[in-house]
Amino acid sequence: MTCIVQKYGGSSLAQVDKLRKVARLIADIKSQDIDIAVVVSAMGKTTDDLVAMAREISTKPPRREMDMLLSTGERITMSLLCMALHELGLDAVSLTGSQAGIITNDRHNDAQVIEVRPFRVQDELANGKVVIIGGFQGVSYKRDITTLGRGGSDTTAVALAAALDAQRCEISSDVDGVYSADPVTVAEARHLPVVSYPVMQEMSMAGAKVLHAHAVQFAKEKNIAIYARSTFDPGKETVIRRLSPGAIPGVQAVVSEKQIERIRLYGADVLAHFKKAVAYLESEQIPIKEVNVTGIGSDGDRSTASFVVSIQNIFGWEQIKAALINKIGAGIDIDIDLAALSLIGEGLNRNNQALQQVFDLLADNAIPILGITTTSFRISLLVPRDRIKKSVQLCHDRWVASNRIQQPGN
Amino acid sequence: MTCIVQKYGGSSLAQVDKLRKVARLIADIKSQDIDIAVVVSAMGKTTDDLVAMAREISTKPPRREMDMLLSTGERITMSLLCMALHELGLDAVSLTGSQAGIITNDRHNDAQVIEVRPFRVQDELANGKVVIIGGFQGVSYKRDITTLGRGGSDTTAVALAAALDAQRCEISSDVDGVYSADPVTVAEARHLPVVSYPVMQEMSMAGAKVLHAHAVQFAKEKNIAIYARSTFDPGKETVIRRLSPGAIPGVQAVVSEKQIERIRLYGADVLAHFKKAVAYLESEQIPIKEVNVTGIGSDGDRSTASFVVSIQNIFGWEQIKAALINKIGAGIDIDIDLAALSLIGEGLNRNNQALQQVFDLLADNAIPILGITTTSFRISLLVPRDRIKKSVQLCHDRWVASNRIQQPGN
Repeated sequence: MTCIVQKYGGSSLAQVDKLRKVARLIADIKSQDIDIAVVVSAMGKTTDDLVAMAREISTKPPRREMDMLLSTGERITMSLLCMALHELGLDAVSLTGSQAGIITNDRHNDAQVIEVRPFRVQDELANGKVVIIGGFQGVSYKRDITTLGRGGSDTTAVALAAALDAQRCEISSDVDGVYSADPVTVAEARHLPVVSYPVMQEMSMAGAKVLHAHAVQFAKEKNIAIYARSTFDPGKETVIRRLSPGAIPGVQAVVSEKQIERIRLYGADVLAHFKKAVAYLESEQIPIKEVNVTGIGSDGDRSTASFVVSIQNIFGWEQIKAALINKIGAGIDIDIDLAALSLIGEGLNRNNQALQQVFDLLADNAIPILGITTTSFRISLLVPRDRIKKSVQLCHDRWVASNRIQQPGN
Repeated sequence: MTCIVQKYGGSSLAQVDKLRKVARLIADIKSQDIDIAVVVSAMGKTTDDLVAMAREISTKPPRREMDMLLSTGERITMSLLCMALHELGLDAVSLTGSQAGIITNDRHNDAQVIEVRPFRVQDELANGKVVIIGGFQGVSYKRDITTLGRGGSDTTAVALAAALDAQRCEISSDVDGVYSADPVTVAEARHLPVVSYPVMQEMSMAGAKVLHAHAVQFAKEKNIAIYARSTFDPGKETVIRRLSPGAIPGVQAVVSEKQIERIRLYGADVLAHFKKAVAYLESEQIPIKEVNVTGIGSDGDRSTASFVVSIQNIFGWEQIKAALINKIGAGIDIDIDLAALSLIGEGLNRNNQALQQVFDLLADNAIPILGITTTSFRISLLVPRDRIKKSVQLCHDRWVASNRIQQPGN
């Protein structure tokens, strides 16, 4: 029997009437005699509301308790969606992450799925039921409720699709796939019908909101094709799948991340300081990226170290920053009000052309470049936060809008 | 080490500032080196809001899904309360009903606690933590989330107190104990310092909101004294405990239940109809009470059967009623818009005095009596719903306010 896994995002389930519409979409699929497991996010702004309550109580709530709190959001959605399906005459059952066998490590707020034991999901599907699963959550080997970090419902869907050996994994949201830039910022942003795993990973890590980077990594490892689509406006969709390498060199997308700070360390003890800073931030479960350490001088006294932090979803960053400065003492600078601009595409850095060109483009427009990092799929530039919108538009005009090369088809 | 179990009701936890106050109360106790386990209800009107959403979707939501939905309310409270305790520097951990070892049968929405396995609670207490437990919920042997029915958090607290062999079980709410009548209805209602288990059970079953009848039954079986008290206005409290029988004969309290309907069956097939009606209502998990069956005539053709249903918390009662009428066909009458008035006290019915007197009292005030039932602790009368307030006041004036006999002390 065909089996598909669908995931619906919070905006597709924001009100009861939307929930009813989603129930009808599911019923349509079930009527074609297809086994369907549905992963849901919390309704609309539920998670934000819960976070706001926690913040009112504590600037730094215990991570275990945050997971206990936030996991309720998906449980509300999944039980209500089951009720809506029953109203349509379908037999449906809701399962928590734990009941669905999503086993994680115990890194609360940002847990990794280490195993999926989908036995109960399989049983319920075999009994003809539609199975609704709370996304974003799992259970640790200590039997505590964990969450996978924001956007983790995508990971739940991909992990389940892999464990169930599903034919399709569909991620439905309020956008009909992946674009060459955020259509809100760039009016000419192009729909991308196919995106490779590594490009999608780079896009997600660089700030694209459509899919969670960890979910894409999971899909890549398990070779699960992800169909990113709009819940209520089907038609276009983006398939994220394995592509033969080198299909289309060049910039495929321009992505930005708006709330970035950079930590720079200097002085004779820079390497020791760097080690201390990383250990402290890890203890606070703050992910760091774009690490750049350069050891210079026989005693390392001219070494430098820097990394960036995406501060958007960090509780109490100001406090953590103060503690970090306090720990390091002299020899630390923090650059605030930055944003990151990323050009993403396969084969982008086979030569230095794009790098030179973006350098010139921003310089011609008097936009200061405060940092550059590259990977084989990406060029990222730090610019002042108040110039990021302009930078994205310029780059998209320069590379994507002017690029008449056909996107790869199926 | 002394161990106490406390339970805080929803109105004591309705807003973040109240939650902070409760955290300080808990910290005060913990500072006396007492092990403390705290059972919490959902915040304020959370449960009602969730029920309203479910009703918007379905007139008859699946019971398993209702449990999944409603159990989130307590989980929100418990994690937020833990955060507030951490802010005060206390180490606290929240546990779901399942994590706390509250094992129930699988009667969803009205599950019975069949076993408590408090090992994790004990471990966390032994580690010096304050343990916060989500009330009202458990886990069935099928590993599904169950709820204990409205007011079930009381039962969680008593069951845990028994399993932990606690010195005290305190039930804190917005009232400072048990009164001889609802103080909202009867201005002269008296505070009762001590109430026996059976009187409290009768009061709860007759409509008193302070404590859940099932919790009292549990306390009686395990001989756990319950201290009913006000969260923010300590001072007076009511102890519910074992009393030497026959201490004070007479009416101790006047209790009412405002939304009652009565089903009456008649005709030659009355006993068969009664059996059918009970089976159907049981399949819908509707509790019935005040059953009265009278077999008359050699072939039972003049038999009558009746029972009452408290309709306040029943989803889709109108639909269920229509189905019941449909199943029975001819031979069923349903009396609507009733209320039940109950006089409660030990030794109340050792003679018929009180019964005769209440009969006269209501007749003198032109209040029709539509039904009477008695137990050894209680006289209940059905009256028209629009006359219940007056009836309660009359009875309280007649028996309690005029009764100068001292209530039993400790």
